[in-house]
Amino acid sequence: MKNSLIKILFALLVLTSVAYAADPLPSWNEGAAKKSIVAFVEKVTKPGSPHFVPVSERIAVFDNDGTLWCEQPVPVQLYFALDRVKALAPQHPEWKNKEPFASLLKGDMKTAAAGGEHAILEMFMATHTGMATDEFEKIVKDWIATAKHPKTGKLYTEMVYQPMLELLAYLRTNGFKTFIVSGGGIEFMRAWAEKVYGILPEQVIGSSIKTRFEMRDGKSVLVRMPELNFNDDKSGKPVAINQHIGRRPIAAFGNSNGDKEMLEYAQGDSGARFELLVLHDDAAREYAYGPARGLPDVKLGAFKRDLDEEAKHNGWTVVSMKNDWKRVFAFEK
Amino acid sequence: MKNSLIKILFALLVLTSVAYAADPLPSWNEGAAKKSIVAFVEKVTKPGSPHFVPVSERIAVFDNDGTLWCEQPVPVQLYFALDRVKALAPQHPEWKNKEPFASLLKGDMKTAAAGGEHAILEMFMATHTGMATDEFEKIVKDWIATAKHPKTGKLYTEMVYQPMLELLAYLRTNGFKTFIVSGGGIEFMRAWAEKVYGILPEQVIGSSIKTRFEMRDGKSVLVRMPELNFNDDKSGKPVAINQHIGRRPIAAFGNSNGDKEMLEYAQGDSGARFELLVLHDDAAREYAYGPARGLPDVKLGAFKRDLDEEAKHNGWTVVSMKNDWKRVFAFEK
Repeated sequence: MKNSLIKILFALLVLTSVAYAADPLPSWNEGAAKKSIVAFVEKVTKPGSPHFVPVSERIAVFDNDGTLWCEQPVPVQLYFALDRVKALAPQHPEWKNKEPFASLLKGDMKTAAAGGEHAILEMFMATHTGMATDEFEKIVKDWIATAKHPKTGKLYTEMVYQPMLELLAYLRTNGFKTFIVSGGGIEFMRAWAEKVYGILPEQVIGSSIKTRFEMRDGKSVLVRMPELNFNDDKSGKPVAINQHIGRRPIAAFGNSNGDKEMLEYAQGDSGARFELLVLHDDAAREYAYGPARGLPDVKLGAFKRDLDEEAKHNGWTVVSMKNDWKRVFAFEK
Repeated sequence: MKNSLIKILFALLVLTSVAYAADPLPSWNEGAAKKSIVAFVEKVTKPGSPHFVPVSERIAVFDNDGTLWCEQPVPVQLYFALDRVKALAPQHPEWKNKEPFASLLKGDMKTAAAGGEHAILEMFMATHTGMATDEFEKIVKDWIATAKHPKTGKLYTEMVYQPMLELLAYLRTNGFKTFIVSGGGIEFMRAWAEKVYGILPEQVIGSSIKTRFEMRDGKSVLVRMPELNFNDDKSGKPVAINQHIGRRPIAAFGNSNGDKEMLEYAQGDSGARFELLVLHDDAAREYAYGPARGLPDVKLGAFKRDLDEEAKHNGWTVVSMKNDWKRVFAFEK
């Protein structure tokens, strides 16, 4: 028995080496960014290395919008909310004369957006609450199965960055647990994150509304309430990471000012650490707008003013989509 | 290569069968409770069974105090708070004349407890907040390494139920992910749950206070604030399960009225489900007080009045510590 076990372990070792021989990041161009990723992973996984990190502490956190998938011209969840407004309009005749709904139904985004944050929050509450969590999950799943990007005509779930999918897989192969930490809705993302990113619901962290436990027709449900529970952005991200994970990540990946504190938090302890920002500088294959979340009128300048200085100062890796990525989307030639 | 792979898989199969041959629950007496556990696990893990559940959906949630470890004469975290009051007293001369601190420092629990929930909350805030989360973790780890149970003289970490440790391991061997969902403090439990139960910090859910992200001496920290964030008890448990896990558990384990809604939530969907209550009826080896959390003056009657009816009505398994458990603690002969 002992002898067979050794044979098995040896065979597994061989298989593992074979798997490693192939480039785990084929959509990344050779360059400083790719090198820094591989160097970090090798450093923390090599037994006996002074930077070795045990598997249970290999926590990596990823922003979603603009880091794992396209957030232009506006974040995907906003399209979901717009489609929900249209679907629910027949049950809400009063929306014809009520902003932001009246303008949204006429397709006049500019007037709708004039109501600012308050109007957006009202639209989200009207379209995202009232139902049980199980029902909401089904609504999102049905929508995301067919909803398409306005510019490319591709499914939103195809608008994910191929190099980042490879990075997620590479980290997981090396014993990392990968988490999403996003300003987006936690239950919106959980409905498709497992299928699209291989990230389980319990590893998705996001903004949330309050829910209430109820018995409905003898069945226990959680009802989604029109009240904000947590805004998972900026300094909220480290707070949510601690609440959900209870450990400081050793690697953090983002693209906007909303991710700054998350990267600072990952960096804030001793031992090997890795922080990365995706720079949107590829107008041909995606968009060029710097890393400021969801503001289509903000161009590269915003990045230069804010995060670039901080990235340099802190030694964060900046990924140029244009130069560092061989492909942006899997559907590219 | 293909041939070696088949050999490996076959060898692994053989090894697996060998592991299964031994009783995975040796501290459980043969009886209805043990039978119901094994029947459930076999049903959901057998490929092709109409009750088969994929690994990613095998979520099991456990209350902590009174379900995984002893909560008598008072919950362990209260002893921690008391020891913190003593340790911090020199820095708080005003406590000599301020309740509940004055009575606590004199060892007069009765007068201290007269202040009710408000007094307890004040004591928790005074002893659990103000420091960074990293510091708090160290304080708890240092304390739990030596703190001992007043009756048995054993470490609190030895006052865990051996049959439940076996149950946790048995579920994990069968592809379950095990979570704690407790009214206790989330960061208090995370400091030792991995070592004691094999449950990772990200799988510990509990009550929490608010934290705030700060840069202190150029280092990013989360500071513990004297403000309640979430009370993870009763109908709060399903809410927290959804927030942290994002899936309905298929198995839930508790011992008190605080766990009722959690068990109802686990039961509230189709497919195979399992719910279990630990009944504290063993005055000789532990305590006899029914399942009412942390109330030393409540005897078996509380269980009879409340949960017993519900358990019968819902088909929940009730475990008699006296009759169903061969051993309660590992240190027993």
